[in-house]
Amino acid sequence: MTTLHTLAIDAMGGDHAPQSVVAGLALAAERHPNMRFVLVGDAARLTPLLARHKRAADVCTLAHAPNVVGADMKVAQALRLRDSSLRAAIDLVAGGQAAGAVSAGNTGAIMAIAKLVLKTVPGIDRPAIAAIGPSARGDIVMLDLGANLECDARNLVEFAIMGDAFARAVLGLTHPTLGLLNVGSEEQKGVESLRQAAEILRNGHLAGQFAGFVEGHDIAAGTTDIVVSDGFSGNVALKTGEGALRLMADLLRQVFRTDLASRLGYLLARPGLERLREWLDPRRYNGAVLLGLNGVVVKSHGGTDEEGFAAAVSVAADMIDHRFDRLIRAGLDKLNPDAPAGARKAAFG
Amino acid sequence: MTTLHTLAIDAMGGDHAPQSVVAGLALAAERHPNMRFVLVGDAARLTPLLARHKRAADVCTLAHAPNVVGADMKVAQALRLRDSSLRAAIDLVAGGQAAGAVSAGNTGAIMAIAKLVLKTVPGIDRPAIAAIGPSARGDIVMLDLGANLECDARNLVEFAIMGDAFARAVLGLTHPTLGLLNVGSEEQKGVESLRQAAEILRNGHLAGQFAGFVEGHDIAAGTTDIVVSDGFSGNVALKTGEGALRLMADLLRQVFRTDLASRLGYLLARPGLERLREWLDPRRYNGAVLLGLNGVVVKSHGGTDEEGFAAAVSVAADMIDHRFDRLIRAGLDKLNPDAPAGARKAAFG
Repeated sequence: MTTLHTLAIDAMGGDHAPQSVVAGLALAAERHPNMRFVLVGDAARLTPLLARHKRAADVCTLAHAPNVVGADMKVAQALRLRDSSLRAAIDLVAGGQAAGAVSAGNTGAIMAIAKLVLKTVPGIDRPAIAAIGPSARGDIVMLDLGANLECDARNLVEFAIMGDAFARAVLGLTHPTLGLLNVGSEEQKGVESLRQAAEILRNGHLAGQFAGFVEGHDIAAGTTDIVVSDGFSGNVALKTGEGALRLMADLLRQVFRTDLASRLGYLLARPGLERLREWLDPRRYNGAVLLGLNGVVVKSHGGTDEEGFAAAVSVAADMIDHRFDRLIRAGLDKLNPDAPAGARKAAFG
Repeated sequence: MTTLHTLAIDAMGGDHAPQSVVAGLALAAERHPNMRFVLVGDAARLTPLLARHKRAADVCTLAHAPNVVGADMKVAQALRLRDSSLRAAIDLVAGGQAAGAVSAGNTGAIMAIAKLVLKTVPGIDRPAIAAIGPSARGDIVMLDLGANLECDARNLVEFAIMGDAFARAVLGLTHPTLGLLNVGSEEQKGVESLRQAAEILRNGHLAGQFAGFVEGHDIAAGTTDIVVSDGFSGNVALKTGEGALRLMADLLRQVFRTDLASRLGYLLARPGLERLREWLDPRRYNGAVLLGLNGVVVKSHGGTDEEGFAAAVSVAADMIDHRFDRLIRAGLDKLNPDAPAGARKAAFG
C-alpha cells in the first residue's frame, strides 16, 4: 500500500496565480497519485477554479487565506502580513499537517518565512538553495544558489551533505559524485574556505564521492553530479549558464529564419531540434529548493506556467517520497557519528 | 605617417610553440602593418621557422633566450629561471624596447613575472585579468577573471576604470556602459564591497556609463559593454558561459547527425550555422590581458593555433595603438583630479 503524503500549496503566489497553480496541480496529481494537497488562498477565487479542474479538486482540500504577499513586497512587510497564503501554507508544514510547501511567490519572503517558521535541521548552520540543471552527462544538482553569499568551510561541507541527500532523493542516484566549484582544479587553488572544505570532504564519509575542485566549464560538462559553491558564485554560475544557453537558442532561431533554404533545413532537422529544445526547457528544471529546514520548501519560478508549476511540485513530491529528511539526517550523523552537536561544530575549524 | 610600435613575443610558450607563434605573427603582421616584433626564444629553432614565414621575418628581430618556462612549472621556479623566453620578453617591456609582450605560456608564471618586473601603474592597487567575449549585443569586456579572488570596493572601482579604458582601446567604444556583477539588480543586493563600489561609481566620473548591478544572464545578453566582478566570480562566470555554449554546440552536432533528413537540414542551413560557429569561435576571443601594469601584457590560450595567437597579438596591438596607457591614466586622474594619490586612496574606504 502506498503511503499518502500531503503538500501545502500557496495558490496565490506567482505571475499567473491562481490559474497556473491549480492547472499545475491537476498535472501533478496524475504524476503523483499518492500526493494530497492543501490549496491555500482566497476561497472565493479558488472554488470556481477547482470546479474546472476536476483532477486537482479530487486530491485537494481548500484552506482559506485572504491575503497575498505581493511580488515586490519587502521581506519585513511580508513577515508581518497576517493570513497570507504563503504564511498559512508554511504554517501547515510547521504544524505537521503537510510534509512540504510549494510557492511561486516572492523569493525573499518565502525564504524568510520558511526559515522563521520551520527553523533549520539540527546540525545545519545555514539552509541553502538548490536546483537541478541539465548537463552533457545528465541532470546535475547545484547549490547554494544565493541563500548565503559568503560561506565558510563548514557551510560548504553542510551544502555537500545536503546536495548528496537531494541528488539521492530527486535524481535517484545511489553514489552521486561531488565537486567544489573553484577557479582551478589543483589542490592549492582558490580561497581558504574552499581548501578547508576540500580537506574535510577528502577525509570524511563522502570521500569516495568527492572529485575535488571543479571549474565553471565542468557544470555543463556534468563532470560531477553535484556542484557545491557559495551562494554568490553559484547564483552567478546558474544565471550565466542559463544566459549563454538562451543566447545560443536565440541565435539559432535567427539562423533558421535567414532564408528559404534555412527554413527548409530547420524543418528537416526539426524532430532532433525539438527534442533538444524540450530537454533544455527551463520549465523542466523549475523548482528551487530551500534545503536544511524542518520540512520541504520548493520555490517555483514566478513566471512559469502550469507545466513548470507541476515540475516544482514533483521536486517536492520526490523529496518527500524518498525521505529526504532521513537522508540528510544520515549524512549529518556520518559526518561525525560519535560527537555531540557542539563537538562536531568545532571540527569544522 | 603611422607610428611604429614594438611588441615582444615569447616564441616558446604554448602547446604548439614555436610553430603556431611564428605562423600567428605572419597573420598579425598583415593586420597590423605598423607593428614590429622582437621574437624571443631559442634562435636555433626560430631561425629556420622565420625562413619559412617571410611575412613574419620581415617585421621581426630575433632575441635569443635559451630557456623555457614549462607549462607545469611552479611560479617560484619560473621566477628563478634565468634567460627564459618569457622573462626576456617582459624585460624588453620594462627596458622600454617594447611597448608590450604576448605569451601563450604558463599563466601563473606570466602574471608573477609581469607583476614583479613591470610593477603596477601608480594609483592601481592590484592588476586584473580582462578578456573580450561575445554577447547578443556585440563584444563585451569582462574583468577580473581570476587575478584577485577576493576584492574590496577600491579594487572593483579600479577594475571599472581599467575596463573602461580597455573597452575604448580595444572595442573602439566612446561611451562603454558598465555593470557590476551581482546576484540581483536591486541596490541593496550583494555583499558590502559591491554596494560600496556601486556607491562610488554612481557618484564618480563614470556615473553616466554605470548601469548599476547586473546578473549572470546579463553577460550573454550584453546588457552592459563591461562587466566588472571579483576574480572568483568572474572566472566562474567566464568558464560556465563557455561550457554552456560548448554543450549547446556539441548537442547541435549530435542533432544534425541523427539521420539523413537532419544531415540534409544541416546542409541547407549551413551558411548561417557556419557564420554562427565563426562568430562564437573561441580563437576570435583569444587573449586575456593583464591590466594595470606599466606595459601591455597579453596571455594567449596555451592550446590555440596561429589564428588564435594572431588574435591575442591584435589585442596587444590595439591597446598600444589606441594608447591604453593614457586612457587608464586619464580615468585614474578623473577619479579625483585634485587629490594627491594618498588622499585618493583614502576615498575608497
